[in-house]
Amino acid sequence: MVSLLCVMFASTAPLKAQGPSQEILAPILKSADDWNRGDLDAFMESYEQSPETTFVGSEVARGTDAVLSRYKRTYPDAARMGKTAFSELQARPLGADLAIVTGRYRLERKEEWGGNKSGIFTLVMRKGAKGWRIIHDHTSALN
Amino acid sequence: MVSLLCVMFASTAPLKAQGPSQEILAPILKSADDWNRGDLDAFMESYEQSPETTFVGSEVARGTDAVLSRYKRTYPDAARMGKTAFSELQARPLGADLAIVTGRYRLERKEEWGGNKSGIFTLVMRKGAKGWRIIHDHTSALN
Repeated sequence: MVSLLCVMFASTAPLKAQGPSQEILAPILKSADDWNRGDLDAFMESYEQSPETTFVGSEVARGTDAVLSRYKRTYPDAARMGKTAFSELQARPLGADLAIVTGRYRLERKEEWGGNKSGIFTLVMRKGAKGWRIIHDHTSALN
Repeated sequence: MVSLLCVMFASTAPLKAQGPSQEILAPILKSADDWNRGDLDAFMESYEQSPETTFVGSEVARGTDAVLSRYKRTYPDAARMGKTAFSELQARPLGADLAIVTGRYRLERKEEWGGNKSGIFTLVMRKGAKGWRIIHDHTSALN
């Protein structure tokens, strides 16, 4: 229940943001819901489909396919995906179609599937035909 | 000597890059030289002087002053700064005046001053009146 309340709070609070921030953050909030349903393919829709899309963890994965492969390797099923909540989301628009978003994630997961995790991320977002999408993700674990 | 060779290699290799990448990476390469002279103030010139400039480590530091304070707290003198070398630098231009740069750093330092460190970073760079500057830095340690 605590977990559920956290997710709801994290999903609701940023929606109160005014103007461009709300639009920029919308696909990120949607991606948390997709994650929490265990739907990695829907989750990946928050990234721009491109061979140039990059994810930085302990190394650089280049291209949406490589990013999805990394997620599938690290989180092969819903138990290992656990439930996530984002917090402290902040969007900084850079012109009309680019933005930097920072935030924190917390992953709640049974000990046997890897236990809880938390960390901090930077997303570079670009507005294209499908709306705002992540073109670069740098995520670092803090525990 | 090994350390010196590493620094020279890391500083020289990316300068062979053609076109915009060379221009984008130039202030980053300069910042490594400034760091290795123990000159934090010169190092900070690679960042855009702005209350919006951000550095993400274990938390978000906002504004050039906060970023410099963080560096001074973490690296109070040349011994703790050690010698750094950047590698695997890759620039991805986003239009004429924005770019994403990824790379790795390695810090060589005596055990008594904290020992060696290494990690991976994302820099969002913007071209302004003073040339390319870092407007957002996400650096994560990997050891």
